[in-house]
Amino acid sequence: MNVAILAHEQFPDRAKTAVGILRYADYDVAAVLDRETAGDRVADHLADERVQDAPIVAGIDGVEGPLDALVIGIAPIGGGFEESWRADVRGALGRGCDVVSGLHYFLESDEEFRTLAAEHDCDIWDVRNPPDDLTVSAGRAADVDADVVLTVGTDCSTGKMTTSVELVEAARERGVDAALIPTGQTGIIVEDWGIPVDRTVSDFTAGAVERMVRERGADHDLLVVEGQGSITHPAYSAVTCGILHGAMPDRLVLCHEAGREAIHGYESFPIPPLPQVVSLYEDLAAPVSAADVVAGSLNTSHLDDGDANEAIVEYATTLDAPATDPIRFGTDEILDAVL
Amino acid sequence: MNVAILAHEQFPDRAKTAVGILRYADYDVAAVLDRETAGDRVADHLADERVQDAPIVAGIDGVEGPLDALVIGIAPIGGGFEESWRADVRGALGRGCDVVSGLHYFLESDEEFRTLAAEHDCDIWDVRNPPDDLTVSAGRAADVDADVVLTVGTDCSTGKMTTSVELVEAARERGVDAALIPTGQTGIIVEDWGIPVDRTVSDFTAGAVERMVRERGADHDLLVVEGQGSITHPAYSAVTCGILHGAMPDRLVLCHEAGREAIHGYESFPIPPLPQVVSLYEDLAAPVSAADVVAGSLNTSHLDDGDANEAIVEYATTLDAPATDPIRFGTDEILDAVL
Repeated sequence: MNVAILAHEQFPDRAKTAVGILRYADYDVAAVLDRETAGDRVADHLADERVQDAPIVAGIDGVEGPLDALVIGIAPIGGGFEESWRADVRGALGRGCDVVSGLHYFLESDEEFRTLAAEHDCDIWDVRNPPDDLTVSAGRAADVDADVVLTVGTDCSTGKMTTSVELVEAARERGVDAALIPTGQTGIIVEDWGIPVDRTVSDFTAGAVERMVRERGADHDLLVVEGQGSITHPAYSAVTCGILHGAMPDRLVLCHEAGREAIHGYESFPIPPLPQVVSLYEDLAAPVSAADVVAGSLNTSHLDDGDANEAIVEYATTLDAPATDPIRFGTDEILDAVL
Repeated sequence: MNVAILAHEQFPDRAKTAVGILRYADYDVAAVLDRETAGDRVADHLADERVQDAPIVAGIDGVEGPLDALVIGIAPIGGGFEESWRADVRGALGRGCDVVSGLHYFLESDEEFRTLAAEHDCDIWDVRNPPDDLTVSAGRAADVDADVVLTVGTDCSTGKMTTSVELVEAARERGVDAALIPTGQTGIIVEDWGIPVDRTVSDFTAGAVERMVRERGADHDLLVVEGQGSITHPAYSAVTCGILHGAMPDRLVLCHEAGREAIHGYESFPIPPLPQVVSLYEDLAAPVSAADVVAGSLNTSHLDDGDANEAIVEYATTLDAPATDPIRFGTDEILDAVL
């Protein structure tokens, strides 16, 4: 499938859905739309060999060749739709492309887009629209035979999705029958399955995760649940807590970005000292399903190799557990602890 | 306004909305519908002088005199609609009564009820339907000048709503300009205002509470936020966590039922030792807005006076804070700590 990815003015640092798709999705990316870096190529910004290269163009009209879908690859705080993207979505539907979006604002509910999609016989997939038959958790996710690992974080955008995907792939390479439980738009697009838990009714958040764990737990030996947000996040902690108790994990992997000291976008809220974050997760998990932080994942993308190594050693010492940057150094260092 | 309250097979012990309305709402209750205790009176089951008395009848046809509304006074786990209640709702709409419901299942979406309501010119108020313009928290509830107190619990149905209402009333009697922030169906019906936070999109749960705190915080000196669920509840902790961080409280009041040892309906999950529950709430609050448990509220309705006194003394000792049963002994014991 040939796709274009919209990431205006936020590529690559604040376009985590776009980067996740470039890295992991089974798509051929024809172009990234970013009016700010147009003319560059993806490889100019992301050196990671797993990220596929593609031209960056200013708008949908600059995408050449056949195109199956436009994917919205950015997710602003609040999940709204930027009117400056309208021409690109209109252009995509006008040439018969499907549109895939993980925004809280459902494109399907937009009169113009719905009409265009009908006229040109294409689909709008609002990834963040959860099933309508969710219900409360029964507190039974731990009944599955599979081991359940959950990635948790000190903040949003610290590598929970990336770490989860990398752990699943590394486990499979070792012959473990592992599966990802996607809880956010990027993971759902990559896996073509999952429930956007941050969009569920709050009473059903844990239940949504429980449903996925029980559905996949029968067929696999290891489930890695993609965490969301942070338990100390002023806005998103409800989602984090619902996942922690709904998944009933056996083990936790703490994801952090090297050097980040405050909650992104909420700078007056410092990230507590890491041992305190670890205790919070473990103490909160315990009454429902005891789980320890057994490994750390550190995003060191802004450091050079020497500093990255040093930061990881320090992180491992602080956590008293093995740690790695899965993109930079793979997951070998932490896989034993996780399995 | 004359109302009937539906509470089939659950009155009074598992009918907390019904009891809350009988105790606090500005309604004249014409009857309670309960096919199990039909023939009794409310006063046969609830001796509390604040609870208004009313006959208990088996169904809507047994309610005499003029009637303005039928209120669904029970909320089963999951919030579904029991088909055995259909005849009563149909009967109420058929005689021109409004219907008020706090179920997750919206009666407005029920074809038969919607048609009947239109035919008989009456309203269906689905209390649990939140505003559609909610968004993420900005982490700014603490900006309000008012002091913010939050009731938290060891489980559902431990007296958070009751304690909140009683504290507001007692504070007003002392001349403090206090207001309730209702977060659940009973409080919303009683106050005729509020947001059902357990029905919000989980990303917006904290934001919904923040909106209410900021809206009322400008006009009052003390806000008492009605908590929900428990931070150790396998199904509902997401809601609890969202309220804790969205409200950014200054002080917490821990609500517990004397003798309850496990989560109701989830009996394989013991309630942790109380000091551990206190630490969990305080440690989880701290990174967003530091708050201590300054008082305890103990539901002793199943104990005799002597045992109740003893249980409260023990509870206060365990919490190292003043405690009371607000229904039995009022809130004088804890009000100083809360103000």
